[in-house]
Amino acid sequence: MGEYTATVTVRLKGGVLDPEAATTQRALERLGFELETLRSANIYEIDLSASDEDEALERAEEMALRLLANPTIHDFDVEVTE
Amino acid sequence: MGEYTATVTVRLKGGVLDPEAATTQRALERLGFELETLRSANIYEIDLSASDEDEALERAEEMALRLLANPTIHDFDVEVTE
Repeated sequence: MGEYTATVTVRLKGGVLDPEAATTQRALERLGFELETLRSANIYEIDLSASDEDEALERAEEMALRLLANPTIHDFDVEVTE
Repeated sequence: MGEYTATVTVRLKGGVLDPEAATTQRALERLGFELETLRSANIYEIDLSASDEDEALERAEEMALRLLANPTIHDFDVEVTE
């Protein structure tokens, strides 16, 4: 068994409104910053024991599908490091 | 001027309680998943025009310091891609 860290990045799908990001962008612009667009996303870094990298990846993807992401509005990707 | 994307990752400092992450971890465990620890973080992906990569990096770091991160409880890092 090895120790792995799975990083699950959960983003809103294109076209889904993101009022938090819009508010953050306006606040930055009011402070004088110039930017084109701002997108926000959540990361979950999960430490887990698994027999190999493939198993760690599979379990983290399952966690994303079951709980961390809502497939109606979110896309996610998973990266695993040892 | 070039178009750059700055990715600002904002994490809670070590030792700062993260009740959202603790709740997420317990929910995963109740679903039958085995994991050691779970940390959460926020990402801001910012598209901006800048004369070079260094300027884009500097402006994104300034945004993090001024608004996106609270230096009392957060660490952040910034990566810039073209």
